[in-house]
Amino acid sequence: MPIDPNSSIEVTAFEWVPPFARGQVRDLRVRWALEEAGLSYRTRLISAMERPEWYFRDQPFGQVPHFKDGDIEMFECAAIALHIAEKCEKLLPREGPQRAQALTWLLAAMNSIDPQVMNQITIEVFSRGEEWATLRKPAQTEILERRLGQLATALGDKDWLAGDFTVADILMVCTLRTARNSSATIPQSLIDYMARGEARPAFQAALAAQLADFIPDPEGVPA
Amino acid sequence: MPIDPNSSIEVTAFEWVPPFARGQVRDLRVRWALEEAGLSYRTRLISAMERPEWYFRDQPFGQVPHFKDGDIEMFECAAIALHIAEKCEKLLPREGPQRAQALTWLLAAMNSIDPQVMNQITIEVFSRGEEWATLRKPAQTEILERRLGQLATALGDKDWLAGDFTVADILMVCTLRTARNSSATIPQSLIDYMARGEARPAFQAALAAQLADFIPDPEGVPA
Repeated sequence: MPIDPNSSIEVTAFEWVPPFARGQVRDLRVRWALEEAGLSYRTRLISAMERPEWYFRDQPFGQVPHFKDGDIEMFECAAIALHIAEKCEKLLPREGPQRAQALTWLLAAMNSIDPQVMNQITIEVFSRGEEWATLRKPAQTEILERRLGQLATALGDKDWLAGDFTVADILMVCTLRTARNSSATIPQSLIDYMARGEARPAFQAALAAQLADFIPDPEGVPA
Repeated sequence: MPIDPNSSIEVTAFEWVPPFARGQVRDLRVRWALEEAGLSYRTRLISAMERPEWYFRDQPFGQVPHFKDGDIEMFECAAIALHIAEKCEKLLPREGPQRAQALTWLLAAMNSIDPQVMNQITIEVFSRGEEWATLRKPAQTEILERRLGQLATALGDKDWLAGDFTVADILMVCTLRTARNSSATIPQSLIDYMARGEARPAFQAALAAQLADFIPDPEGVPA
């Protein structure tokens, strides 16, 4: 759905991030879920560089996304995506083993894969060149690559983690897209899995919308 | 509920862990949710030291807990707790702002707090004495303590994170209990919050059941 300034749903995102982070910021996951569910939304953009003090009342950790829809206020991208999926049976079966599998894989993305991906990105991007990061990198890379290998084994020759495409795939594909910004080796089956996710029209629309929301770089800043 | 060998619900846990990990292993969170919901369960115990090869077919990363109930099979403690909570309205409101808040805080526990707690524990316990860990400790401690301060601000003078006690508090209290095993300073309001959680009869029963399942230490191993 196109962004609709009159939508009841408001998603908070960043107005600008450095080039390496574009297409990675976590509001993408919420935009993707909304697109899959056919729900329009408007955006509220804040500065990533100087997060406004008032924003911490909405999001205690100062992160994006934040989500508002009438009297519903939420943060944590996976919680918001789950909330959206509960309105949309194609993203989350209403009951039974397939719902249980989708919940399992959503949490696996956020607690078993994402933290190791973020540790890798901390070492390779945010703390790059710091002595601790150089020393830790080989062991951290081994931890992440082992996890990715185990994930590839669990996916096997399936297209999606929990049977049909579900909200869990939104979270897992986006987590793996971040891993792609590191030097860790990603198994081919997970690269193919990411490509299936990225080929979905809802993903494409969400990505385009995130990128379109960033204000142009100041002159002289290389894109 | 006491453990019932005839229960349809099976929880997989470890048969033995070193003393510092007792009362911390993540099946505690599932046992606690089951106790709150009044559901009995049986346990399947595996070795933490030599995780059986077949277990990786049930749990791709070799971790506990694993959960089975008829044709439902799950892993990830927070996914299992959420599944249990969906059967038990007192752990998760069926709809509306309070459900949204509970989902938000469950994911905040697992993706915004737990990863920083585990990074701290990696530095202070699993990699203790390694040069990278010594170098990284001050900055990591600052990250964790900042998060805990933000969490304390969000909790304010409330008893629980999402209004009444919910499944989110099970995950958050258990995550904070792990932080207590580190040198990070925990705000007094979160210490009080943990104490409220630990005072619940369901928590006490779950903790006792986890501890009772560990086989005795071999002679000569200090407890």
